[in-house]
Amino acid sequence: MSQTPKRSGAKLLPLTIIVIVAAIFWYQTPPEGLQVAAWHTAIVFVGTIVAIVANVMPVGAVGLLGITVFALTHAGGEATGKEAIVDALSDINNYLIWLIVVAFLIARGFIKTGLGRRIALLLTRVLGKRTLGLAYGLALADLILAPAMPSNTARCGGVIYPVADSLARSFDSKPGDGTAKKIGTFLICCIGNVNDITAAMFLTAYTGNLLAAKLAADAGISLGWGYWFMAAVVPCLVALLLIPLVVYFLTKPEIKRTPDAPRLAKQQLAEMGRMSRNEWIMLGVFLLLLVLWIFGGQFGIHSTEAAFIGLCVLLITGVLDWDDVKSEKGAWDTLIWFAALLMMANMLKQLGFTAWFGGQVGGMVQSYFGGMSWVVVLAVLVCVYFYTHYFFASGTAQVAALYSVFLSVGIQLGVPAVVMAMMLASASSLYCSLTQYTHARGPILFGSGYISTGTWWSVGLVVSIINQLIFLSVGLLWWKLIGLY
Amino acid sequence: MSQTPKRSGAKLLPLTIIVIVAAIFWYQTPPEGLQVAAWHTAIVFVGTIVAIVANVMPVGAVGLLGITVFALTHAGGEATGKEAIVDALSDINNYLIWLIVVAFLIARGFIKTGLGRRIALLLTRVLGKRTLGLAYGLALADLILAPAMPSNTARCGGVIYPVADSLARSFDSKPGDGTAKKIGTFLICCIGNVNDITAAMFLTAYTGNLLAAKLAADAGISLGWGYWFMAAVVPCLVALLLIPLVVYFLTKPEIKRTPDAPRLAKQQLAEMGRMSRNEWIMLGVFLLLLVLWIFGGQFGIHSTEAAFIGLCVLLITGVLDWDDVKSEKGAWDTLIWFAALLMMANMLKQLGFTAWFGGQVGGMVQSYFGGMSWVVVLAVLVCVYFYTHYFFASGTAQVAALYSVFLSVGIQLGVPAVVMAMMLASASSLYCSLTQYTHARGPILFGSGYISTGTWWSVGLVVSIINQLIFLSVGLLWWKLIGLY
Repeated sequence: MSQTPKRSGAKLLPLTIIVIVAAIFWYQTPPEGLQVAAWHTAIVFVGTIVAIVANVMPVGAVGLLGITVFALTHAGGEATGKEAIVDALSDINNYLIWLIVVAFLIARGFIKTGLGRRIALLLTRVLGKRTLGLAYGLALADLILAPAMPSNTARCGGVIYPVADSLARSFDSKPGDGTAKKIGTFLICCIGNVNDITAAMFLTAYTGNLLAAKLAADAGISLGWGYWFMAAVVPCLVALLLIPLVVYFLTKPEIKRTPDAPRLAKQQLAEMGRMSRNEWIMLGVFLLLLVLWIFGGQFGIHSTEAAFIGLCVLLITGVLDWDDVKSEKGAWDTLIWFAALLMMANMLKQLGFTAWFGGQVGGMVQSYFGGMSWVVVLAVLVCVYFYTHYFFASGTAQVAALYSVFLSVGIQLGVPAVVMAMMLASASSLYCSLTQYTHARGPILFGSGYISTGTWWSVGLVVSIINQLIFLSVGLLWWKLIGLY
Repeated sequence: MSQTPKRSGAKLLPLTIIVIVAAIFWYQTPPEGLQVAAWHTAIVFVGTIVAIVANVMPVGAVGLLGITVFALTHAGGEATGKEAIVDALSDINNYLIWLIVVAFLIARGFIKTGLGRRIALLLTRVLGKRTLGLAYGLALADLILAPAMPSNTARCGGVIYPVADSLARSFDSKPGDGTAKKIGTFLICCIGNVNDITAAMFLTAYTGNLLAAKLAADAGISLGWGYWFMAAVVPCLVALLLIPLVVYFLTKPEIKRTPDAPRLAKQQLAEMGRMSRNEWIMLGVFLLLLVLWIFGGQFGIHSTEAAFIGLCVLLITGVLDWDDVKSEKGAWDTLIWFAALLMMANMLKQLGFTAWFGGQVGGMVQSYFGGMSWVVVLAVLVCVYFYTHYFFASGTAQVAALYSVFLSVGIQLGVPAVVMAMMLASASSLYCSLTQYTHARGPILFGSGYISTGTWWSVGLVVSIINQLIFLSVGLLWWKLIGLY
């Protein structure tokens, strides 16, 4: 999400088409049971999502455009100009958005201090004697960083990928000269698929999680940091154990043993020298954050406030300076598009659209699913939701567009609310590896050249099936055990 | 404000002193008539302002710290942790803040396209035959840019100053070699003092104006874009005509005629070539903004929405790309510190502190001012407010700290509310030239080396007196004429 190629202006053709189609719908009489304001907001919302998917402009710019168009059209109805812009800006101060913004800023510290790289190298040194161990080492590093690095693009692309790439090259496995298959294809393929699992494990490990949590909250389901972790930990750990194996067998790396890897990691660690003051502080803040996220509620410290405290410590100690904060573009990018999507989702709910639309879809599918066990309903809905992602270029765009709809349909058809919410939320991370274009991390890993489209898609498909099977078996059992339903 | 030197960490000594002093006050019984929550919020607010003035960290970082500490301490009382952070973030979506943020982003276009420089060069070509004409030309350029460039630091330091500096050098007037007095001292001194007058003229010409407008709104006084302009235009134009003359006589430039300046400007314009597509679009957006800011209210388009529309046009046409937006650090800086100060000011009002404090101060000064005409009261209060700025390192910090207090005291003592509000608001721009440290623009102009401290302070003092006389005579007459009071 934070990786947007430099480019000038909007793609005018798709933008024009979107505007024309929206204008045609605009002047239709709204379907029965829907007021005009709800109808118009829905058109702006769908238009914004389509513009994101069609990549008319970078996602933040589309978000800004969405806010502007919403305020402009909203003002026509009952709202005055001032009320319209106040409504349009109403979610920019949302605490979940600021949790993610501040977490983005904190995450910069992992890269700036080198602590992220050190963790990856340490685990390579300990686990890296075999190719498979190397993959698990990198997976563990990703897992450790996940709770405090909500940009999984930065986590995988900025910390893990450089280590994996340099390891592959040290074994003379390079893209483009036929040696990729020696070990590079496996490693790069693995870190991408693993990245989705670590993203699913913590509320703060992926921007889409926060969006899902907010939409679930709108439907009356509260998914806090600790609650999310408790639910996700077991199925995610199972997946984290299995998936590297699966990718190993699918990509068949030629090099099976890597006795040199630990030595190499040791050498690079020696070059880094001892842990610096700033790395220690970063580590301390990271541990503080975990403690506050897990236990802070008992002392009246909300997870967003915990993140603010962590950032303040980094600023006061000079680990980050204010200029780092101001130039963390990913944070400001996320702020804008997240606020735009949340605001519109909220408005749709307030105006009665969400309930109406859920009712329509629920009514339509009721006949198909009548009398079926909710587990079957859940499996079918999650499966449809999952593979719909082939049509989306961003994990979070699909959450914004479809999460609420699938959630409300599932609940109507008898799936326990929390189960439906968590299952869709997990799918919203896991579907990101399906193709090289379905997540911002994709272009980095695919662009490295180690993985062909065919390999990516086939591995992505097999992994997706296994992940869903894990969540529908182990996940459901675990959730029953801890009393989620 | 947007110029913060790179530095690591907080200044620990002043920070520690602030924390200790705050802690001592914290455990005092609040003064009578004040609840504990109001007392505590006031301590956090004053601590934040003192930390800004003492330059403990860059102003944005202090704002972030203020938000964090507020939420942390606020949670102790009646609010839960979640309520505390929601309250702490409550003003980040304020429409005035977003007017200023988006205006910052638009202003980048003036610099990026070169339109700002072109305007300054054009006016130099037309008016620059004499030294004084040159100064008026630069003043006019500043005036033209002012409504759409709310960072007066960027306006003066980024657009006008480079042109003035290159003009001075072309007349062999350089800092450090005794030639500064030829023309450089005058030009640089003049653009700084003029910059404050253009800042006072439009609601969107200076960040502090928006803060003043918000605080005035809290006191029930509505200062919209058009209203502000109507009130400010006459006294500001008079000041704009007089002040360059005053500075001229005070700094006595040796070169009086500059027949080469128009030629030089022409040459530089020739190098720039014809107006580019992007410059034309920028010009169009600028005119659109002016029209919408003046007449938009009649079509239900709020001034903030107008700014959003302008920015969208720049993004769609590619004059600005999304990366420009994400990397406009000044905007994100302003967002944070502005939101922190507004939130606390708001909380102080909600908790009854503002009314209580105004009552205390009003009671104290009542005896001195008993029976005096409100014009005298106004003059004394504005004068005290104005010269208090010798103790502030930022124009907006003083607005945050003292504007509401002076406003409420003035109103209590019988000064018409709107008059008090506009007079203090004007002073909040005009006091910025008093010294080289009282505004972020100062270090740029002072750092150029053309102006000695003695010259700066004496010119600043004389100009401040004349400005106040203009506003108290012409200003008050004009405001009577247009029925402001």
